[in-house]
Amino acid sequence: MHIAIVICDRANYGRLQPVMQHLKSRDHELTVIASGSAVLSRFKYVADDIREDGYRVEEILCSFEGSTPQAMAQSVAASLSHHAAVFERLAPDFVIVIGDRHEALGAALGAAYTGQCLVHFQGGESSGTIDESARHAITQLAHYHVPATQRAKARLVQMCQRESTILTVGCPSSDLARSVMPEDRDEILVVYHPSGNLHEVEQILQARADLEGGLRWRWLWPNIDAGANEIHKLLRRFKAEWGDGWIDFETNMAPRDYLKTLASVRCAVGNSSSFVRDSSFFGTPVVLVGERQMGREHAANVMHAGNVGECIRHQLRHGRYSPSGLYGDGFVSERFARALEGVGRYTQKWSHHADLGTCAGAGRV
Amino acid sequence: MHIAIVICDRANYGRLQPVMQHLKSRDHELTVIASGSAVLSRFKYVADDIREDGYRVEEILCSFEGSTPQAMAQSVAASLSHHAAVFERLAPDFVIVIGDRHEALGAALGAAYTGQCLVHFQGGESSGTIDESARHAITQLAHYHVPATQRAKARLVQMCQRESTILTVGCPSSDLARSVMPEDRDEILVVYHPSGNLHEVEQILQARADLEGGLRWRWLWPNIDAGANEIHKLLRRFKAEWGDGWIDFETNMAPRDYLKTLASVRCAVGNSSSFVRDSSFFGTPVVLVGERQMGREHAANVMHAGNVGECIRHQLRHGRYSPSGLYGDGFVSERFARALEGVGRYTQKWSHHADLGTCAGAGRV
Amino acid sequence: MHIAIVICDRANYGRLQPVMQHLKSRDHELTVIASGSAVLSRFKYVADDIREDGYRVEEILCSFEGSTPQAMAQSVAASLSHHAAVFERLAPDFVIVIGDRHEALGAALGAAYTGQCLVHFQGGESSGTIDESARHAITQLAHYHVPATQRAKARLVQMCQRESTILTVGCPSSDLARSVMPEDRDEILVVYHPSGNLHEVEQILQARADLEGGLRWRWLWPNIDAGANEIHKLLRRFKAEWGDGWIDFETNMAPRDYLKTLASVRCAVGNSSSFVRDSSFFGTPVVLVGERQMGREHAANVMHAGNVGECIRHQLRHGRYSPSGLYGDGFVSERFARALEGVGRYTQKWSHHADLGTCAGAGRV
Amino acid sequence: MHIAIVICDRANYGRLQPVMQHLKSRDHELTVIASGSAVLSRFKYVADDIREDGYRVEEILCSFEGSTPQAMAQSVAASLSHHAAVFERLAPDFVIVIGDRHEALGAALGAAYTGQCLVHFQGGESSGTIDESARHAITQLAHYHVPATQRAKARLVQMCQRESTILTVGCPSSDLARSVMPEDRDEILVVYHPSGNLHEVEQILQARADLEGGLRWRWLWPNIDAGANEIHKLLRRFKAEWGDGWIDFETNMAPRDYLKTLASVRCAVGNSSSFVRDSSFFGTPVVLVGERQMGREHAANVMHAGNVGECIRHQLRHGRYSPSGLYGDGFVSERFARALEGVGRYTQKWSHHADLGTCAGAGRV
Repeated sequence: MHIAIVICDRANYGRLQPVMQHLKSRDHELTVIASGSAVLSRFKYVADDIREDGYRVEEILCSFEGSTPQAMAQSVAASLSHHAAVFERLAPDFVIVIGDRHEALGAALGAAYTGQCLVHFQGGESSGTIDESARHAITQLAHYHVPATQRAKARLVQMCQRESTILTVGCPSSDLARSVMPEDRDEILVVYHPSGNLHEVEQILQARADLEGGLRWRWLWPNIDAGANEIHKLLRRFKAEWGDGWIDFETNMAPRDYLKTLASVRCAVGNSSSFVRDSSFFGTPVVLVGERQMGREHAANVMHAGNVGECIRHQLRHGRYSPSGLYGDGFVSERFARALEGVGRYTQKWSHHADLGTCAGAGRV
Repeated sequence: MHIAIVICDRANYGRLQPVMQHLKSRDHELTVIASGSAVLSRFKYVADDIREDGYRVEEILCSFEGSTPQAMAQSVAASLSHHAAVFERLAPDFVIVIGDRHEALGAALGAAYTGQCLVHFQGGESSGTIDESARHAITQLAHYHVPATQRAKARLVQMCQRESTILTVGCPSSDLARSVMPEDRDEILVVYHPSGNLHEVEQILQARADLEGGLRWRWLWPNIDAGANEIHKLLRRFKAEWGDGWIDFETNMAPRDYLKTLASVRCAVGNSSSFVRDSSFFGTPVVLVGERQMGREHAANVMHAGNVGECIRHQLRHGRYSPSGLYGDGFVSERFARALEGVGRYTQKWSHHADLGTCAGAGRV
Repeated sequence: MHIAIVICDRANYGRLQPVMQHLKSRDHELTVIASGSAVLSRFKYVADDIREDGYRVEEILCSFEGSTPQAMAQSVAASLSHHAAVFERLAPDFVIVIGDRHEALGAALGAAYTGQCLVHFQGGESSGTIDESARHAITQLAHYHVPATQRAKARLVQMCQRESTILTVGCPSSDLARSVMPEDRDEILVVYHPSGNLHEVEQILQARADLEGGLRWRWLWPNIDAGANEIHKLLRRFKAEWGDGWIDFETNMAPRDYLKTLASVRCAVGNSSSFVRDSSFFGTPVVLVGERQMGREHAANVMHAGNVGECIRHQLRHGRYSPSGLYGDGFVSERFARALEGVGRYTQKWSHHADLGTCAGAGRV
Repeated sequence: MHIAIVICDRANYGRLQPVMQHLKSRDHELTVIASGSAVLSRFKYVADDIREDGYRVEEILCSFEGSTPQAMAQSVAASLSHHAAVFERLAPDFVIVIGDRHEALGAALGAAYTGQCLVHFQGGESSGTIDESARHAITQLAHYHVPATQRAKARLVQMCQRESTILTVGCPSSDLARSVMPEDRDEILVVYHPSGNLHEVEQILQARADLEGGLRWRWLWPNIDAGANEIHKLLRRFKAEWGDGWIDFETNMAPRDYLKTLASVRCAVGNSSSFVRDSSFFGTPVVLVGERQMGREHAANVMHAGNVGECIRHQLRHGRYSPSGLYGDGFVSERFARALEGVGRYTQKWSHHADLGTCAGAGRV
C-alpha cells in the first residue's frame, strides 16, 4: 500500500516514527508530507531529519507569521489548499494524521474533500484551546481512528463513529518509550509551555527557591507559541539574578534523550502533554501545573498542583510509581500496521447514532 | 448586537430570511457575508437580491471552477481565508451559518479560528456525500446549535454538545411556509438534483409515460452540481421526443412561488431536501427517489420509492396528509431571536462526554 | 536539462507543441504543468491530450468561477501559490511560459520568486485588456525572451532587457503551420471572441446578409470569456431566424484542422489573434474587426474594418497574399532548442538602461 | 477623492506620511491598507501607530514564516488575494503603492486585476535581489508614476511608460527631512542590513577597531530579512568581547529621531537605502558598503567602499557636503497632491514604444 504520513512538527514525528518503521519494514510505500514548523529552519527543519532517516519527504509551507488567531486561520487555509493538491497527485491508499494542530486539521480537510481514506491518531482526547474543537472536527472527517486509550475510544463511539472503524491498539509513543532504559538521576525536569498564565511559572520558580538542595533542576526552553516571549523574559531575569548553576536551561533535546530524561528524573514539573502521556509508561512522578492538560487522561503518577512546592515534596517522598499501560504497552505500531492491512479503503462516511427510533413515514413501495 | 450572517447560496437565504427579519426588527445590526453561488451571476447573483431587501452585504468570491473534489477542497480554503479576514474586521457578537455546504464549513473554520462565537443551524441531521462529514465538523466548531428537529437535537447531544448550547426552536423555513396559502392544483412537481444515478431520472420519466393524463407535470431544472450536464442532456432528449406540452420544464422560481407550488400540488416527486423539510408543513404527498436524502428525518407524508410509478399512484390516491410540526411550527424565528438574546458569547469549547469515570491519579494538593 | 513547460490553455499547447517535440527529441527531460482551462473538463481537458502525446503532466487547479475581474485576480494568486510549490519541488533548469494570460503571470511570479530561470515566449507584443500589462510584467520577471517578431524584439530592448537574453528565433506556431497543406475552399471563416462590443457581431452578420451567395460561411463558436453569453444569444437568435444552411456554426476544431481551414478559406473575418499571427504564414486574406488585436503586428494580408462588408468584398477580389515570414519560417523550434542549450542559467536580473550618465559621487577608495 | 494607501512596513509609512498629511488636509478620504510587517507585533505593529495618527486602517495578514524564497512567493499570493478583495469592496479612486517589496507587488497585482487606477512611487530605480524585477513589474502594472529623480523618470520613459503618466515631483521623504534641524554630533552612524556577505560586517567592525577614539559609534540593529541571525550572532560576539561602551547598539528609533541622527553625525557607514536617499538632503558624508545599493542614484556625499577604514577617514576629513535636491526639495507632497487632482482615472494601459515604423498591412476601408 502507499501511505501518506502528515507531519506538522517534531512531536508528530516522534510519535509516528515507530509506526513508520513498522509500515516500511512490511514493504509499504511511504510518503511523508512535512508542513508547519517541520519545514521551518528556526525549528531545526525536522523534514531534513526525516529524509536522513530514509523517507521520501514532500514539503508544504503553510505557516503565517504572527502567532495570532488570524495567523492560525490563514495557516489552516494554506495547509488545506496545498495538502489537497499533494494528495490528488499522490493518490495514496491511506492518509495518516495525528493530533489536533491547526496544520493537521488543514491536512484532514484536504484529505476528506479530495476523497482520501483518512486515519487519525489521538482522537477522542480532551484539552483546552481551539485544539479541542480541531481534534473533534478531524474525528468527524476521519475514516479510521486510532485512539490512545480505552476512554478515548469510548468518546469516539459517543461521537457517532462506528466501532468497526476504531483501531484500538494504543498510543505508538509507548513503542519509543519501551526502548528507553531508565536510570536513577537526582534531577527534576521542568517543561512549561505558554498558556497565558505567567503566575504559574513564578510558582515553579518559587518552589525551586524554597526547596532544599541536592537535586539538579533541568528546565527545557518552552515552544514558540503565542506567549513564549513573556516566559523567556521571566526566565532570563531569573537566570540573571540567581546565576547559572541553580537551574540548567536547555534549548533542545533529541526525542530519545528527552524520553530517557523523563524516565530517569525523580520528578517532572510543568504542563507538557508528554508528562501525561509518556510518563505513565515509566511511572515518573509528575506535578501538573495549570489547566493546559485539563481533561487529559492520566495514570496514578500524575498529581495536579495546587501548591506546586508541596506537590513536588509529596512526589519526591513517594518516589517512582508502577508503570502503567494506559497509553500503550510498547508494541502498538506493529499491531497498528497489521490492523491497517486488514481494513478496507472507503470514503463515504455515515455517522452512527444510537437508536433514536425510525421515521413514521408513508413507508416504501 | 452585531450579527454576521453567512449566506452561501439561494437556499441559505430562503431559510434564514425570516430569522434576519426578526433580528432586524429587534434592532440588531446585521451584516450578510455572501459567498459561493450567492455572488455568481450565473446563479442570478443572490447577493444583489439581499441588498435590495435592505441588508448590508459583503461579498466573498471563493468558488473554483470544475465541480470536482479538488475544486471543492480549494473552495473551502478560499472561503476560510477570506471569511477569517472579514470576521476579524467586523468583530461581530455572533456568526450564523446554516447547513453543510463546503463554503459554510470554510466560514465556520474562519469563525472558530478567529475567536468568533458561532451559531449553527441544521446540525445533527444525516445525509450522504461529503456534506455528511462537513455538517458534523461544523457542529464540533460551533458554540450554539439550532437543530431543526428533536431527533437532530438528540444527535447533537450524542455528539458531545452540551444541552445548554442547543437552542431547540425548530427550523425557520417553517416561518416562510406558514405565510403560504395552499391551493388545490392538478399538478405534479418534480425536482431532481444530480446524485450520480441517471437511472432514477429515467424511472421518473417512465412513470410520467405510464401515468394516465389529466395532471400537469412541472419539472424544475436541477442545480449545477457535478453530474448536472448528464441530466440536462437526458431531459433535452426526452423533450425533443415527446414535445413541449407533456412536461413543463421551468428554470427558476422565486422562493415564495416555489413554496406555494410545493404546498398546492397533488404530489411531489424527486430528491430535493425541501420535499423532506418543507413539505411536512403542508402535508404534500411526496415520492422520494434515490438515496440523496437517505437518513433525513421526515413526516408521514413521505414515501420512499421503490417503484416510482406505483408510489405516485399510491400518493395520488391518498391525497394530502395532515400538516406536521416536525420541522417547526411557523413561529421559529422569533423564538430564535429571543433565545439568542438570552445566551452569552463564549469561545472556548469543552466537549461534554457522558460519565466515563474519572482518572485515578495521585490527586491534588 | 530538465525543463518545466507551463500550459494554461489549449492555445498554449498548440503553439508550444513543436518546441516540446524538439526538446524531447534532443533528450531533455520535460514536465508539463497544466493549469487554467487546460485542466477543466468543460474545455475538453487538454491535460489529458498532452499525457496521451507522451508527456509527464502535473495539474494545478487555479480558475475561480465568475469571469469577473475579481475572479481573475484570485486566479492569479492561486496560480502563483501552486506554481511556486511545484517549481520548488521540481527544481527544473528552465521554466517556459508563453503569452499574457493571467494564469501565465501567476506562473511567472511563482518562478521568479522561487529562483527559477524563466523563459518567456511572445513578449514585446501589444494588445488591449489587462493582458497588455500582464505581458510586460512577465517580461520584467523573465530571464530569457523569445519574441515572435523583430519588432517585438526591439520593444523588449526598449523595455530594458539585455540583448544577450533575447533569443530571436521566431514564433514556433509557424512550425505547425509549415506542416499544413492549404487547399482552395470556397469558404469564409469567422472567429469572434468577446470584446464588449456586440455591435461588431451584428456588422459581421449584416455583411453575411448583404453578400452574394456561393460561399460557405463557417463560424467558430467564441471562447467563454466574460461577454460570451451575449454573443451566444445573438447567434442563436440569428440562427433561429435564418435557418441552418446559411451559416455553419462549429463548436470545436482540432488545432491542425483549424490551421488547415485558416490556410484554405478565401477570407477570414473576426478578431482572433491567430488571424494576425498564423494567417501571415499562409497569406490568407483577413478582415480584422474591432480593437481586440489593435497594436498587434501583422503582415500585408490583414485589413482593418471599417466597413466589414466592403472589406470582405475587397479581400475576396484580391485573393491570397504572398506568404510572410513575419511570425517565423517554420523552423523555429529547433533553432530555439539549440539556442536554449547555449545559454546559461541565472537568476539575478539587472535591467539595462541606455546610458543616462553616471553618478557624480565621492568616488571609491 | 477616495484614495487607498498601501503600507507594507514602517519605511513605507515614513516616506508616505507627508503625502498622506497633504491629501488629508485637502479633504480627500484616505484608507490605509496595512500589510506585511506593518501588522506584525514583532515589528512593533505600525498599523496601530498609523491609527493613532488619525487614519482609517484596514489590515491584511500576508506574511509567511521562513524568510525563504518560497515564503516570499506565498506571501505575494496572499497579499494579492486579500488586496484584491479589499480593493473591490472599497472601490477607491486611486491606489497608491511605493517601492519594490513583494507585498507591494501583490497589492499592485490586486489593484491592476480589479480595475483600480494605480499610482506607484519610486519606480525607475535600480538595485539588486528580486526587488529589481518586482519594481519594474509594478511599473508595468501602474497607471501613474512618481519617480524620485530625473534619472528614474528617464528610465520609466525608456520602459515604455507615457510621459503624461509620470508625475515628476520628487521623493516625498525629502519633506520629512526638511523639517529636521541638524546638529553637530561627534558620532558615527552604522546601519547594515543582511545581504549575504558577513565579511562586510567584519570590515566595519575592523574599521572601528583601527580608528582613533573620540567618536561615539551608534549601530542600529539590522532588519529581520534572511541572514539577520548571522549578523546578530557576530555583533553579540563582538559586544561580549569588547564591552558596551565601544559601540552603542540600538534596536529602534522613531523616524524623526533617525533622520535627525542621520543629519547630525560626522559619517554614516553601511548599506541602508536611506544613506543614498535621505542623506543627500543633509550632505552627510556616507561610506556605502557592499553591493546592496548598487545602481541606486546618489549625490556627491556618497563614497563606495573599497577599504571601509580608509573611506571613513576620508569622509571625516572632508566633512559635511553641500545639500542636494537630487531626491526632492522638501516640498514634494503638496506638488504631488495637486498633480494627482489634475489627472484622470483610467484603467486600460497602452504601452508607448518609440516609433518602430507601422505595419504594412492591407490598410483600412
